[in-house]
Amino acid sequence: MGTVKINREDVFDGQFSCNTSTLLDPEEFRRQGHIMVDFLADYFNDIEKYPVRSQVEPGYLKKLLADSAPNQPESIEKILQNVRKDIFPGLTHWQSPNFFAYFPCISSTAGILGEMLTAGLNVVGFNWIASPAATELECIVMDWLGKLINLPKTHLFSGGGGGVIQGTTCEAMLCTIVAARDQMLDKVGRENIDKLVVYASDQTHFSFQKAVKISGIKLENFRAIPTTKATEYALCPILLSKTIQEDKKTGLLPLFLCATVGTTSTTVVDPLKPLCEIAKEYGIWVHVDAAYAGNACICPEFQHFLNGVENANSFSLNAHKWLFSVLDCCCLWVKDPNSLTKALSTTPECLRNKATDSNQVVDYKDWQISLSRRFRALKLWLVLRSYGAVNLRNFIRSHVKMAKHFEELVAVDERFEIVAPRNFSMVCFRVSPLALQEKVIFVEEDQVNKFNAKVLESINSCGNIHMTHAVVGGVYMMRFAIGAPLTDYRHINMAWDVIRNHVNVLLKNLSSVASIG
Amino acid sequence: MGTVKINREDVFDGQFSCNTSTLLDPEEFRRQGHIMVDFLADYFNDIEKYPVRSQVEPGYLKKLLADSAPNQPESIEKILQNVRKDIFPGLTHWQSPNFFAYFPCISSTAGILGEMLTAGLNVVGFNWIASPAATELECIVMDWLGKLINLPKTHLFSGGGGGVIQGTTCEAMLCTIVAARDQMLDKVGRENIDKLVVYASDQTHFSFQKAVKISGIKLENFRAIPTTKATEYALCPILLSKTIQEDKKTGLLPLFLCATVGTTSTTVVDPLKPLCEIAKEYGIWVHVDAAYAGNACICPEFQHFLNGVENANSFSLNAHKWLFSVLDCCCLWVKDPNSLTKALSTTPECLRNKATDSNQVVDYKDWQISLSRRFRALKLWLVLRSYGAVNLRNFIRSHVKMAKHFEELVAVDERFEIVAPRNFSMVCFRVSPLALQEKVIFVEEDQVNKFNAKVLESINSCGNIHMTHAVVGGVYMMRFAIGAPLTDYRHINMAWDVIRNHVNVLLKNLSSVASIG
Repeated sequence: MGTVKINREDVFDGQFSCNTSTLLDPEEFRRQGHIMVDFLADYFNDIEKYPVRSQVEPGYLKKLLADSAPNQPESIEKILQNVRKDIFPGLTHWQSPNFFAYFPCISSTAGILGEMLTAGLNVVGFNWIASPAATELECIVMDWLGKLINLPKTHLFSGGGGGVIQGTTCEAMLCTIVAARDQMLDKVGRENIDKLVVYASDQTHFSFQKAVKISGIKLENFRAIPTTKATEYALCPILLSKTIQEDKKTGLLPLFLCATVGTTSTTVVDPLKPLCEIAKEYGIWVHVDAAYAGNACICPEFQHFLNGVENANSFSLNAHKWLFSVLDCCCLWVKDPNSLTKALSTTPECLRNKATDSNQVVDYKDWQISLSRRFRALKLWLVLRSYGAVNLRNFIRSHVKMAKHFEELVAVDERFEIVAPRNFSMVCFRVSPLALQEKVIFVEEDQVNKFNAKVLESINSCGNIHMTHAVVGGVYMMRFAIGAPLTDYRHINMAWDVIRNHVNVLLKNLSSVASIG
Repeated sequence: MGTVKINREDVFDGQFSCNTSTLLDPEEFRRQGHIMVDFLADYFNDIEKYPVRSQVEPGYLKKLLADSAPNQPESIEKILQNVRKDIFPGLTHWQSPNFFAYFPCISSTAGILGEMLTAGLNVVGFNWIASPAATELECIVMDWLGKLINLPKTHLFSGGGGGVIQGTTCEAMLCTIVAARDQMLDKVGRENIDKLVVYASDQTHFSFQKAVKISGIKLENFRAIPTTKATEYALCPILLSKTIQEDKKTGLLPLFLCATVGTTSTTVVDPLKPLCEIAKEYGIWVHVDAAYAGNACICPEFQHFLNGVENANSFSLNAHKWLFSVLDCCCLWVKDPNSLTKALSTTPECLRNKATDSNQVVDYKDWQISLSRRFRALKLWLVLRSYGAVNLRNFIRSHVKMAKHFEELVAVDERFEIVAPRNFSMVCFRVSPLALQEKVIFVEEDQVNKFNAKVLESINSCGNIHMTHAVVGGVYMMRFAIGAPLTDYRHINMAWDVIRNHVNVLLKNLSSVASIG
């Protein structure tokens, strides 16, 4: 090891000594770092004091801050005072135990510590040589996590496939679409780009359509196959098959299918097995988006949802959603890394190096859109080790049990109804038409929807809890998604009280049809 | 403010109390957080002890780690022991004061604290309502930074344009290419996608070509216009003009030009003024990539390099490169945000909200590829406030002065030569053919290149300092890029000693032509 010993007090040659050392003076970092840790620990202690959804009006912050950067330095103490006073009111507190909106984006002690370590080391692992541990740890933890969710060996490095940590699902989708696109166009000629067709259900996350659009594939060739109540809004294999056949008849080129395990609206699971079989028949690339629900598959009792994934070309989940890994951490596995790197690799002279030339190493820049990349594997490694598989499974199961508990609370109150089967830790429900019939003689679906939208807005405006909504099959529903790191039964019960109180008040005020709209 | 008061000790209804609270127990976070801060402070203290470029062999880490995730939890103390023992040897220490490779990716106390705060709050600001402060602070700091580098008002929110923080330059390029592509195809019809042409110089960062490829534009229509010594490898406006005219003659559609302020190989600056004027004439979108050098423009003496940018459609710099903001922080400004959001926006039902419907707010998901996004504005805000414009300029100037100092050291040693003009804090140099002529009678360029490559590998293998290389105009050169946060004159002088020592040894061993290759 080449050790460089230099006395820090040396002043070379009496030259002008620049003051860049204040940028990262270890003792000053230590002092400020401890202040920040205490600030965050206090925040977590106090988090229930804040309205969950921010209650500010657009433009609030502009009125509070200067319109240009300060000339002189300011102390961390002063800045953190401003964070508390000016920034906190504008935050929607995603880590609040009373946050039930969207899908969770869960932080954890291990996840935050991982981010601290990543920021502190601040290495840029675009290729192996730029920081070998960044690449090698990522390969290792991606195999670890793949095994935990029981992905087929073909999708792991140990079986010829491999995994990569990207920022978000949309990036993962874009990379796999481009891989599939170029594989196909290499065969049929690139002038056929406008003949490529991609498939998904109308419940697929809108990021997929965006990724398709970015990739240059014609938006008219995006097939959002309708789903219905009959399949609980899962993608119907027969319909997929029909749609593909029609496209083939008109001379189009079926390219790509995005199947979902746990849709955003209602956590429906598309039937991977038949879908992948159909896709295989036509040589279509299948990507499985399991952004939220894929994380639950670290528990054996959820792994059946992945049956059939062995025929998928790629699979992704967001560990920042429900595996406690702090935004951003999208884990993507591919069966054939070559198809990915063939589309995305570039090795300019300035990055040439022996290790790359030897073909012995993974260069992750060729697995993603960007060159630069953060050392995200650290946080996933810290999460997996700090909690261990046993506890991670317990966390997931606790969230699911709490969701069951909430579901039971809703089910016994006849003014409410569950409107979609609960597969994981999210419950979709609404105030039922029955509840309104007590007040209004003829209740139409549209009125029920409007009333539920009113309920949700009333709840979110009070700040005690936060939920968001979905509309599926024409039904407006409230989504109660459990996963924040400090949520416990008392929060679920309190939330249920809040919901009922708002509904009580709104039902009371409801005296005529007009008042619904 | 809706305040929720719940006694933390309450156990509701005697129900099973889940153990998810261990995920983010405030006091446990505090304990572990302090441990991590001390770990990092110690790392910064010791950082010079480690070989700058990792000296491990491919596959080293697999031999040290288990092949599956642990079942039981492990302590942070044990994990950090492993980081020191197993991970550190595999790191290339980008924050080492002896790191002169690539471009710097600079961390700082404020930048790391910003990342800690981002990870701790862990809000997801995809649209305004999801956490208003995340959006509003980003708009404000992007205007702050835009003013600091003297961007035209047209590119700031205060002048009708606006800025967004993306991860990396490649993302920024891809977003702007897609905006330009769709704007054009909307006019001429999307069946003309294969007629679109993009322009850059042969010195443009390879990320641009990758972004073009991802966007579905035909790679044959990517014009890497050759540069020569005559313009110091800057893009020649006359050549650009000619190339465009030829393309137009053959019925192609000129779409996009990427100009560079501070190329990767030699920090050359393309002449923005004439290039933008030509592009304007043909209605071509101009993106200015100032990833590294744009940061220097917070100093008035560098702002002349941006002359002409008022006619560019978009401009980006990486604040993680040379504005102390920790990876990742790519700042992108656009003159016409509508063109960006038109190409990238999606508003599915599940994200509908009053603020968005009112058109009063920025929804940053429509300014980027991904839906989810980290609250990166915090770190940029912390950096700008913690150091103030005065100190930030001093840091930049210190780095530039150190580069000048290194340049002088090289210049007085006749065995070396400076091979490209130094514009910022990077010096391109090589062992000169003269030095070899003492040993070898007929020296060819190829031999000089090989000898310099040997020198560089010898230096990097010793671990004392780390540099990388470039090849421009057939000349292999060593790049000495200054910017690591703890680098001071003594490191520059030490580096120069290391370089000379290696060259001395290699020259000494050089007894024949054969020994060069």
